[in-house]
Amino acid sequence: MDVGEQELLTAIGKVLSGAGPEVLVGVGDDAAVVRPGPGDLVITTDVMVEGTHFDRTFTSARDLGYKAVVVNLSDIAAMGASPRQAVCALTLTDAVDAAWTMELFGGMREACDEHALWMIGGNLALGREVTVAVTVIGEVARGRAVTRSGAQVGDAVVVTGSLGGSAAGLKIAAGSAVSWSGDERDALSRHFRPMARVGEGQGIAHAGATGMIDISDGFSLDLSRLCRASGVAANIHASSIPVHPAATQDQALAGGEDYELLATIPPAAVVPLAAELMEQFGTRLSVIGEIGPGEGVTIDDAAGRRTLDPVGWDHFA
Amino acid sequence: MDVGEQELLTAIGKVLSGAGPEVLVGVGDDAAVVRPGPGDLVITTDVMVEGTHFDRTFTSARDLGYKAVVVNLSDIAAMGASPRQAVCALTLTDAVDAAWTMELFGGMREACDEHALWMIGGNLALGREVTVAVTVIGEVARGRAVTRSGAQVGDAVVVTGSLGGSAAGLKIAAGSAVSWSGDERDALSRHFRPMARVGEGQGIAHAGATGMIDISDGFSLDLSRLCRASGVAANIHASSIPVHPAATQDQALAGGEDYELLATIPPAAVVPLAAELMEQFGTRLSVIGEIGPGEGVTIDDAAGRRTLDPVGWDHFA
Repeated sequence: MDVGEQELLTAIGKVLSGAGPEVLVGVGDDAAVVRPGPGDLVITTDVMVEGTHFDRTFTSARDLGYKAVVVNLSDIAAMGASPRQAVCALTLTDAVDAAWTMELFGGMREACDEHALWMIGGNLALGREVTVAVTVIGEVARGRAVTRSGAQVGDAVVVTGSLGGSAAGLKIAAGSAVSWSGDERDALSRHFRPMARVGEGQGIAHAGATGMIDISDGFSLDLSRLCRASGVAANIHASSIPVHPAATQDQALAGGEDYELLATIPPAAVVPLAAELMEQFGTRLSVIGEIGPGEGVTIDDAAGRRTLDPVGWDHFA
Repeated sequence: MDVGEQELLTAIGKVLSGAGPEVLVGVGDDAAVVRPGPGDLVITTDVMVEGTHFDRTFTSARDLGYKAVVVNLSDIAAMGASPRQAVCALTLTDAVDAAWTMELFGGMREACDEHALWMIGGNLALGREVTVAVTVIGEVARGRAVTRSGAQVGDAVVVTGSLGGSAAGLKIAAGSAVSWSGDERDALSRHFRPMARVGEGQGIAHAGATGMIDISDGFSLDLSRLCRASGVAANIHASSIPVHPAATQDQALAGGEDYELLATIPPAAVVPLAAELMEQFGTRLSVIGEIGPGEGVTIDDAAGRRTLDPVGWDHFA
C-alpha cells in the first residue's frame, strides 16, 4: 500500500461522507450508531473473494465495489425489505494501491446511493488476497418479511427479469472477442454490474408472495432450496423460462449470479403484479410453473417431464 | 473441503441452533430477521485474516472463532452497548476440513453464549487464505452511546485491567519455551482468548464517561485517536499504567490486542466506578492520567515529561 492506514481511512471517510438523520455515529468510531425505524431488522452478509468471485485482471475496482454491495441488496430484496445501512470488512493486499481502493469505495458508494442506504462503518486489514465482506441491514414492516419457507400448493412460481445473462457474460469476458453484440454487452453488464431487484421485491411482497429467494447460486439450486424449506414440490415449464438473449438454457437453469427474484404467489395475484412491476420498474415478471405437493423440482419440455437436478454454485464441489 | 457446502451448512446450523424470541428468522434464509428493542443500534465489523492476525500452526480453530467474535464485542463494549446478534462471512481454504470448521463455529458459539448474543446468519466462501469477518449488532439506550469524541478538559483517563499481556503472549507463543509461569500462561490466554469488557463498558457508560475506545491497536495509538476525535490533549503517568506482569512497558504502551477499555470520566466518578467494577466483575480500573487542552499525548516518568508517539498496529506501515 502506498499510503498509511490512517491516511487511507481519512480518504475513505470522504468518499463515504454524508448520512441520513437516523445515523447518529458513522464511520470513524469503535462502532456505528443508528436509530432503528418501527419495522423489523433484516440482516445479511456476503463476501467477494479474489480468485473465487472475481479476477482483478477482468474486474475493475469500481465494478467490484458496486457488486459487493449489490449481492447483499439482492438478499434484502428477497425478504421484501428496504436496505438501510451497510458496513464493510475489507482485506487488501500489497498488489493494490490507494487509487484502486478509492475506486472500490466509489463503486460501493454508487450502489449505496442508488438504493438510499449508507455505508456507516468498516474495517481494513492486509492479507494475500482481496476480500470484500459487506453486511447490509434493512427494514421491513413488522412480521412482513417473506421467507423461503411459506410456499403453498397451488401457488404460481414467478421470476423477475431474465436468467443466464451473468453466466453468459462471464464466458464472453473470458473469451477472445474484441467486439460484442448488444445482447452480449448486456450479458457482460449482468455479470460485472448486476442489479438488485429491491423495488420489485417489495412489490412482490405486497402482492402476497408466500415464498421468495434471490437467484444467486443458480435457478435450479435456489428453487430446490425454496421447495425444501417450504416442504413442497415445483413443476417448471421449460418454454416459459425467460432465458437471457445471450445465454443458453443450461446457463439460465444453473448459471448463478443472476440476482433475479424467484417467488411463489397465489395465481390471482400474478396479472396485476406483472403489470405493476412493468409499469414501475420496467421489469418483466414471468410465470414459469406451479407449486404442488411432495418434494423436488420437475421440468416440462418437448421431451416430456423430467426431474430438474439442483445444479449450481457449490463452493466445495 | 471434505464435505459439500450444503452438508457443512446443515452442520453449522446445528452448532448455532437456538435463538431468543427477538430472532424471527435465523440461519438458513436469504437474510435474518430480528425485532429490534427500544434502543439505538450499535453496529461493528472486524475481520481476522490468516497470516496477518493468526497462524493456524499456533491458533486453534476454537480460539480463532472465539476471538473473531470477541474483537467485535470489544467495539460494542466501547460504546457502552449490549451485544444482541452477529453474522459471519467466512472464507475457507482447501487446507481446512469440516472438523476444523465446526471447531471454529464452536468457538464463536462459546463467545456468543458468554455474552447472550445470537449468531443469526452468515456466508461461506472458498479462497486461498482463511478470513473470518464477523459483524455484531448491539443495543444501547437511545442517545446514550459513548463515542470517542466527547472527552472534556479536566476528565480523568482510566483503563480497565492490564496492558501488554497480549503482545507478551504472542512473543511467548513464538518462543521455544515448553513450560511457562502463571503470568506467562495468563499472557498466552490474553492473546489467544481475549476477554471483551462488555459489562465493564456499560458500567463506565453509566458512570458518566465522556469518551471511550477499546485498546485494539495499541494504547498510545488508541489514546491519540480518542484525543484527536475529542479535540483535547492527554497526559499519562507512566507509573500508573497497569502493565501486565509478563509484559514490558513498551508492550503495554504499543502492543495492541489487549481489548481493554480506555475512557475519560469526570474525576468525581472514578472512585465509585472503580469499586463497582471490582465488585461486579473483579476488574481493576486504573486512573492513569488526565485530559487537558491542546492536542497530542504526553507521558510523565522519572526522566520528566515527553511526547508519547502514537505507535501501534498499522496494517500498511
